[in-house]
Amino acid sequence: METGRHRSQSLGSAGLAFHALLCSSLLLNAVFFAHHLLRSSPTATPERLGDGLSWALQAAREAEAVAAADCSGHGNVFLDGVTGEDGRPGCECNRCFSGPDCSVRTPNCTADADSGNPLFLEPYWRRHAAASAVVFSGWHRLSYITTGGRFHSVELDRHIRLLHRAVGNAVVDDKYLVFGAGSMQLINALVYALSPDGNADSPPASVVATVPYYPAYKSQTDMFDGREYRWDGTTATWSNNGSRNSTKGFIEFVTSPNNPDTALRKPVLAGSSAIVDHAYYWPHLTHIPAPADEDVMLFTASKLSGHAGSRFGWALIRDEKVAKRALSYVEQSIMGASRDTQLRMLKILKVILANLHGKEDIFAFGYDVMRSRWRRLNAVVSRSTRISLQKIPPQYCTYFNRIKEPSPAYAWVKCEWEEDVDCYETLLAAGIISRSGTLSEAEARYTRMSLLKAQDDFDVLLERITEFVDAEEHGRAPGGSSSM
Amino acid sequence: METGRHRSQSLGSAGLAFHALLCSSLLLNAVFFAHHLLRSSPTATPERLGDGLSWALQAAREAEAVAAADCSGHGNVFLDGVTGEDGRPGCECNRCFSGPDCSVRTPNCTADADSGNPLFLEPYWRRHAAASAVVFSGWHRLSYITTGGRFHSVELDRHIRLLHRAVGNAVVDDKYLVFGAGSMQLINALVYALSPDGNADSPPASVVATVPYYPAYKSQTDMFDGREYRWDGTTATWSNNGSRNSTKGFIEFVTSPNNPDTALRKPVLAGSSAIVDHAYYWPHLTHIPAPADEDVMLFTASKLSGHAGSRFGWALIRDEKVAKRALSYVEQSIMGASRDTQLRMLKILKVILANLHGKEDIFAFGYDVMRSRWRRLNAVVSRSTRISLQKIPPQYCTYFNRIKEPSPAYAWVKCEWEEDVDCYETLLAAGIISRSGTLSEAEARYTRMSLLKAQDDFDVLLERITEFVDAEEHGRAPGGSSSM
Repeated sequence: METGRHRSQSLGSAGLAFHALLCSSLLLNAVFFAHHLLRSSPTATPERLGDGLSWALQAAREAEAVAAADCSGHGNVFLDGVTGEDGRPGCECNRCFSGPDCSVRTPNCTADADSGNPLFLEPYWRRHAAASAVVFSGWHRLSYITTGGRFHSVELDRHIRLLHRAVGNAVVDDKYLVFGAGSMQLINALVYALSPDGNADSPPASVVATVPYYPAYKSQTDMFDGREYRWDGTTATWSNNGSRNSTKGFIEFVTSPNNPDTALRKPVLAGSSAIVDHAYYWPHLTHIPAPADEDVMLFTASKLSGHAGSRFGWALIRDEKVAKRALSYVEQSIMGASRDTQLRMLKILKVILANLHGKEDIFAFGYDVMRSRWRRLNAVVSRSTRISLQKIPPQYCTYFNRIKEPSPAYAWVKCEWEEDVDCYETLLAAGIISRSGTLSEAEARYTRMSLLKAQDDFDVLLERITEFVDAEEHGRAPGGSSSM
Repeated sequence: METGRHRSQSLGSAGLAFHALLCSSLLLNAVFFAHHLLRSSPTATPERLGDGLSWALQAAREAEAVAAADCSGHGNVFLDGVTGEDGRPGCECNRCFSGPDCSVRTPNCTADADSGNPLFLEPYWRRHAAASAVVFSGWHRLSYITTGGRFHSVELDRHIRLLHRAVGNAVVDDKYLVFGAGSMQLINALVYALSPDGNADSPPASVVATVPYYPAYKSQTDMFDGREYRWDGTTATWSNNGSRNSTKGFIEFVTSPNNPDTALRKPVLAGSSAIVDHAYYWPHLTHIPAPADEDVMLFTASKLSGHAGSRFGWALIRDEKVAKRALSYVEQSIMGASRDTQLRMLKILKVILANLHGKEDIFAFGYDVMRSRWRRLNAVVSRSTRISLQKIPPQYCTYFNRIKEPSPAYAWVKCEWEEDVDCYETLLAAGIISRSGTLSEAEARYTRMSLLKAQDDFDVLLERITEFVDAEEHGRAPGGSSSM
C-alpha cells in the first residue's frame, strides 16, 4: 500500500500535473484554433485575401515583386519593362552599368549630361513608397468627363493652388489654371491663346526669346507653324529700338530660372505678352525671392516632383479670355491631360504638401542633393583655367527663410581657352555629352551640363570632369582641341 | 492492492489516454505556434503587413474602400473625386440620378445622348477587377525615357500588335506604330506628317472629309491652322472632276465605321493621302469583314476598352518617313503619351488578350450590350413615321466567325416629317439631347444619338424615345415643332 499509495499519490499528483498541462494545452489549442478561424475567415472566399484585401491584392503583389528586384542600386525594374525569356521584366540599368543585375560597370564610360531628366528625386519617392503609391481600378475614370463637368480634376486644381500658396512661389488667387500634357504642350497652347484670332484681320504675332533660351520654344513654334504667329528670332533684334509700340503683337518667352544658364529672368520687351516659364522656380533648384505674379506662367511636374514621364504641366493665367483659349486648345488637341496622370499627380502633391517644412520636405531633400553636386563640381572646376561655370551667389530664400547656397539644375560651362571654340566638342573629346549652347543661339564656347539626373550619372560626370581638369594641370589635355 | 492495482491500472490506461491526448494537444499547439510564427513573421516590422504586402498595402486599401462605396448602382466614387466635409470623395451620380448615394431619380429627366462616352464597358472592368488593377509606385518611370531609348513602351507596342493580329482587324506587320494622347492628338500629327515640309516650295495640302464626318477633323485643322495645310471642305466638291492629278496634295479623312452614321467607308478621292480612322473598327461595334490595311490608320483605347479618360490612341503607318514625322510631332508637342497611361493600357490589353474568344471576351460582352440596345431602340422607332434610323443588315464577322446582328455606337436619326426641319430641335423638345447632323455638314434633318454611354443613360434615352413615339401614335407630339 505504501508503494501503492505512494504510487497512487504520486500518480495523483502526476495526474493533477497532467490535468493541468492537458487543460492548458487544450485551452491553448482552442485559442489557436479560434485565432486561426478568425484570421482565415477572410480567405474563406477566394475573393478575400490578405488583410481584407480583395481585387487590389494581385496588382499590389506584382508591383512589390517588381520593386523588390535587385539591380545593384544601379537600375530599376518597372512593371512595363521589356520581358525576358522568363516572361518577367528585367533590370533597366543606369547609364554606364550593365549585366542582368546592373552590377557591371562600363570602363571609361562616356558621361551623358545632355538631358534635363530629373532623376535626382527618385530616392525621395522610394523613401515615401507607401504614401505615394496609387492603385488604379480597371474602371477608374473611363469617362471623358472628370469632376466639374470638364477634363480637369477639381481636387488636383485645388492641391496645385495649395502647393503654390504653401511654397510661396506663385500668386494663384487671381489666376485660371489650365492643365496640359507637360508644360511642353502648353508652349504652343499659350502661343495660340496669345495670338490674334484666326479670323481676325491682324498680322501674325512675333514669337521671340532672349539668348540663351530653351530650344523647344523655337522648334515647337516652327513645327506647328500656325498662320496666326511666327518665330521671329531673339529679343536682341527688337529691344534696341526701344519703342513700346514696335513690340506690340510680340509673344516673349521668358524662363526663370533660365534654361540653360539658371539665372532669374524678366521680360525684355516692353509691351509684349510674356509667357514666363517657371519650370525651375521651386526651392530645391533656386532661391525664391518672392511669389511670381506674371500674367501667364508655366509650371511642370517634371522639375517639381521628378515625374517627367507622366507628362503633366500647368499654366496660371490672369486673363479669362486667354485662359479660355488655352483651355480650348488643350481640349481640341488632346481632350485634356490624361486622367490617369491627374490621379497620380494628386497623390504626389498630397505627399509633398504633407511633408513641407518637415524633416522629409521634398525641397529640403532635393536642395541637399543639388547643392552637394554643385559644390563638388565647383571644387573640381575651380582648379581649371580651361572651363568655368556660371557664378551664382548665395541668396535669401523666402521658403527656407534663410540664405541658401546655389543648387542649380544645370552647369552653364564656358570654354575659356581661345582654341576651344566649340565647348561641346571639347567636352565630348573628354568623354562628356553636353548640350551645345548653339542650340540656344549662344556662342559655341558655351555648353550646358545637366546636374539633375541620377546619382550614377552625376558620379560619372564628375569623374570625367576631374580627369579633364587633372589632365589640364598635368599638361596633357584629353580634350581633342587642346594645343598643349 | 486490487483497488490500488485497479486504480493503478485504470490510472495507467487513463494515463495512456491522457498522454496521448496531451501529446496530440501539445503537437497541435506546436503546429499552431509554428504556423503563427510563419504567418506573423512578415508583420514583425511595421513595414510588412497584409499577406506579405508592405508599401502597396495602404494604397490598395484606399482603392478598395473607395470602390466599395454604395452609389446605388447609379454612380461611382473615384479616388480623386471631390471631397466632402468628411474629407472623403463622394458619389458621382450618373445623369438623372442625385442624392448622396445617387438613389434619387430626377423626374422627367432630359436624356443626354450627345457624347460618345464609352461607358457601356464599365461593367466589364468591374467584373475583371483583380486582373485589370495596376499599382503605381511613386518612382514608376520618372524618366523621359521609357524602354528602347524613346517615349514608347516596347511592351505596349508589342501587345497592340498582338491584339490586332488576334482580332484580325488590322495588318500590323508592315506598319510603324505611333502613340498619341488619344487618337484626337494624332489627327493633327498625321495632317502634319502628310503635309509638305515647312521649308518645301509646295502649296499647302488640302484637308477634306466626306459628309457626314467627325467634326474634330475640321475644327482641329482650323485651330492649328498650319501654313503647310488648310481645311478645304468636303470631298463632294472635289470628287466630281474625277481627275487623279487634281486631288494630289489632298489629305482625306475617312472614318470606318463612320462617325456619325456607322457605315463602313473607303476613301473617295483617288490620289489623295487617306487617314483612315478605325476608332470603331472592333468586333463589339461592327462586323469585321477583313483586316484593314490602309497606309495610315488610326485607333483609340476609348472605343476599344472604354478608357476615354486615359487619352491614348495610336496610328499604324506604312511609310517610314510619314511615321517619323508623326512621331516627331508627338515628341515635340508632348514628349510622348503619358507613361502612366502606357502602363495602365498595357494591363488593360493583357486582360483583353487573355480573354479573347473565351466566355469573358470583351468583344462578346460589348457586342451583347450594344446589340441589345440597338434591338430595343429599333423596336420602338419602328412604330414611328416621324423618325427613322440608319439601316444596318446582319453581316458576317470574321472575328466571331458568324453572321452578326448590328451593334452600332450611334443611331443616325432622320426626322421624316416635313415640318421637322431641325431634327436636333425636334428631339430636344422631346427631352433628348443629341448631336445635330449640321456639325457634320449633313442636313439638319439628321442628328446623332449616342448609344454607348452608361446603361442609365440608355434607359432614360429609351424612355424619352418611347414617349415621343407613343405621343405620335396618340396624335399628340411632345416635340415642339410638331404641327399635329
